[in-house]
Amino acid sequence: MSDTTSRPDERLLAALRERLGERLSTAAAVREQHGRDESWHPSQPPDAVAFPDSTEEVAWIVRQCAEARVPVIPFGTGTAIEGHVAAVQGGVCLDLSRMDRILQVNAEDMDATVEAGVTRKRLNAHLRDTGLFFPIDPGADASLGGMAATRASGTNAVRYGTMRENVLSLRVVLPDGRVIRTARRARKSAAGYDLTHLFVGSEGTLGVITEVTLRLHGIPEAISAAVCPFDDLESAVRTVVQTIQAGVPVARVELLDAVTVRAVAAYAKLDMAAAPTLFLEFHGSPAGVEEQAATVQALAAENGGRDFAWATRAEERSRLWEARHNTLYALLAARPGTRAFTTDVCVPISRLAECVAATRRDLDKSVFGRDGGVAGVVGHVGDGNFHVAMLIDPDNPDEVAAAERINERMVRRALDMDGTCTGEHGIGLGKLRHLTEEHGADAVAVMRAIKRGLDPQGLMNPGKLGSA
Amino acid sequence: MSDTTSRPDERLLAALRERLGERLSTAAAVREQHGRDESWHPSQPPDAVAFPDSTEEVAWIVRQCAEARVPVIPFGTGTAIEGHVAAVQGGVCLDLSRMDRILQVNAEDMDATVEAGVTRKRLNAHLRDTGLFFPIDPGADASLGGMAATRASGTNAVRYGTMRENVLSLRVVLPDGRVIRTARRARKSAAGYDLTHLFVGSEGTLGVITEVTLRLHGIPEAISAAVCPFDDLESAVRTVVQTIQAGVPVARVELLDAVTVRAVAAYAKLDMAAAPTLFLEFHGSPAGVEEQAATVQALAAENGGRDFAWATRAEERSRLWEARHNTLYALLAARPGTRAFTTDVCVPISRLAECVAATRRDLDKSVFGRDGGVAGVVGHVGDGNFHVAMLIDPDNPDEVAAAERINERMVRRALDMDGTCTGEHGIGLGKLRHLTEEHGADAVAVMRAIKRGLDPQGLMNPGKLGSA
Repeated sequence: MSDTTSRPDERLLAALRERLGERLSTAAAVREQHGRDESWHPSQPPDAVAFPDSTEEVAWIVRQCAEARVPVIPFGTGTAIEGHVAAVQGGVCLDLSRMDRILQVNAEDMDATVEAGVTRKRLNAHLRDTGLFFPIDPGADASLGGMAATRASGTNAVRYGTMRENVLSLRVVLPDGRVIRTARRARKSAAGYDLTHLFVGSEGTLGVITEVTLRLHGIPEAISAAVCPFDDLESAVRTVVQTIQAGVPVARVELLDAVTVRAVAAYAKLDMAAAPTLFLEFHGSPAGVEEQAATVQALAAENGGRDFAWATRAEERSRLWEARHNTLYALLAARPGTRAFTTDVCVPISRLAECVAATRRDLDKSVFGRDGGVAGVVGHVGDGNFHVAMLIDPDNPDEVAAAERINERMVRRALDMDGTCTGEHGIGLGKLRHLTEEHGADAVAVMRAIKRGLDPQGLMNPGKLGSA
Repeated sequence: MSDTTSRPDERLLAALRERLGERLSTAAAVREQHGRDESWHPSQPPDAVAFPDSTEEVAWIVRQCAEARVPVIPFGTGTAIEGHVAAVQGGVCLDLSRMDRILQVNAEDMDATVEAGVTRKRLNAHLRDTGLFFPIDPGADASLGGMAATRASGTNAVRYGTMRENVLSLRVVLPDGRVIRTARRARKSAAGYDLTHLFVGSEGTLGVITEVTLRLHGIPEAISAAVCPFDDLESAVRTVVQTIQAGVPVARVELLDAVTVRAVAAYAKLDMAAAPTLFLEFHGSPAGVEEQAATVQALAAENGGRDFAWATRAEERSRLWEARHNTLYALLAARPGTRAFTTDVCVPISRLAECVAATRRDLDKSVFGRDGGVAGVVGHVGDGNFHVAMLIDPDNPDEVAAAERINERMVRRALDMDGTCTGEHGIGLGKLRHLTEEHGADAVAVMRAIKRGLDPQGLMNPGKLGSA
């Protein structure tokens, strides 16, 4: 499909400029910034960046682009990490950050509808007085439209699910400019194909998400958090697996390996030993939280984790999770001037300890295990999901090659364990070549058929999911 | 697309018979039985019924039918209630009941993979010694393939979700006979379009589901159940809404109106007053269950529900839920010789009391509210979902017309409240005309584009979702 797209000509740009004025930019710096995310993938700038104000305006821009066969790339906060927004065929980037209105909070129904550009932190700040919160928390303060488009996840997913479980409905501008809503606000429905889930995780390749209706959750009556160091990764992972299998409804359970703990402690000025460490959080009634914590503490002790440090005050907890969320930035600070080659996989939990340990061994044996090398393992381990961040000098071919080799081995290992090549980072450009390996050629052909059915001209974020 | 299909000719039937032998039937009684479900919709028999043994055999049959442009209608247990399996253009029905192997139980990962014909009760019997169970429980002992295909739900959905949340992966025979697996066993994935959710709820119109990988859940340490009568429907619904809003993780909360309680009590020989009644169940640790129960009991008391009757022993609980699951049969027994015109909607919970009460008023004012008439309201009210069963003589046009009018009003009311025309019964034939009303013409066009992309000949369960 890719051969049918065009670059925007002067006529299209003039039309866009006439309507958008200052809200259309062709400045090199703006284009450069919009062609890259937080990953090591080089920028591939769009030809222009538009900053629409409304669904109606998005639809109008998309129609102009469709008529001119010009690609459209939706853009939230640019915090993806697999090259999702790279404009591989040029085109017009739609930066949705101005669409930042919180349209509706239905406290009784525990849902909210927001424009795509609202970020997760802004929504939670807005919800503060309702007793409700929105739990999905990727590292970055991403936009909720972008989080829906990439099926984002985070530290709370083990308890509250990912965007897959927490998007009730979307408003979407289709590739020809028509506007649909994918579902009603009812909690469940058996009325037709599940369009909501089709667009969640479609990475901007089937349409532009302009509004998101989200499930909210009650702020738990009681919360407690703790960190617990272990002698080795396997013991930490084993504790998590046993916790899940015991049915403890743990809200967060995060693993940081020794390298990452050292970086995080330095960056956040926390006093922590450089050992594989679990970050835990429990939500519930006061009695329930105590019960959960006691069970996990006992399991940890059996696995050699004895130094539970509790964060009982809200500020302590915030500091802890802030530190956890800043992992990527902490690792980057541990080797200044580099970029992070990040990757993630997710495996059935019975295989998690083996998968994490083998990956860490790969890192230790590589250039990243030598003096001056930095690579951390961090995981939402309650889901079987973990990440590796390898700090590379993008101009050093040895480091890039080593990172790519380790990534390949990690993906293949996960697939051999009936896992997935990405638990939450997405396909973007970085994992495109793994799609067929994971799903098989026939399933990928189904994805292409869907893409062709919805976007016959191949204009939506081309060169990514569905077209490559 | 419908004009392209053909009836099976002698050549096709001979080819099928040669491979399947006795496992192909063209007997009138078998065809008649496979053209109808448990609803009032008249049977539209297929031309032949095949009983395949394996995915490979399903694929072979589908290929033969595709070459001959003959429709294929997948069939589980025939317990749908919106005419899902009616062979409106004839064709070959694929009865998957012989595909009843439990292929894999991964207790550590809390998942299981079964062939499509395994029923929910058989899976749970098989799981008995693992400490795990599968919670989704529509009234009938349906097949898990059918439950996936119809996005089934049940009494546990408020706590454990529906098939939408509990299917991890599917094996699907595509309309041209290719076989795909929609996902790996990892708990979450950001790798590509969500094919699993596309097939869950696709009602046999995009392919034949032959294997289902399901999430399992730990059998809770403690369970308690109770029934509580109320003075009126609104008070009962209000109690439920307040329970959900208080964040009580109730496992089941079912509403039966007075008519239904009377029928159920008679059918199951239970001693219950004919009043609107909540059936409740709590899962958790002993302390957690007690805490939940105390909260709900207090909320019920505030709404006039004072006579909590507890079922603490497992046998009592089984009897209670067995009675609840037999609601449809109990109502049918209350007016022998009739068929049930059933319908369901789901609304945001803030509108539930109003929606239920208005529907009950409609029933009371109709032929079903008069002497001899029977119509019950039953709901999985924790989700905002409720059902109406109107007992009709299908040969009495007044009763059919009254049922249709009440159904229309109920659907319109739900849509006006931003609800859905069906929470769990599905579209089938009965709700086809509401699809556009709910989703809009453009969203339905997207569904059609998906259908065309995957099934260009329109052979899979034609005349239903995606093609009508």
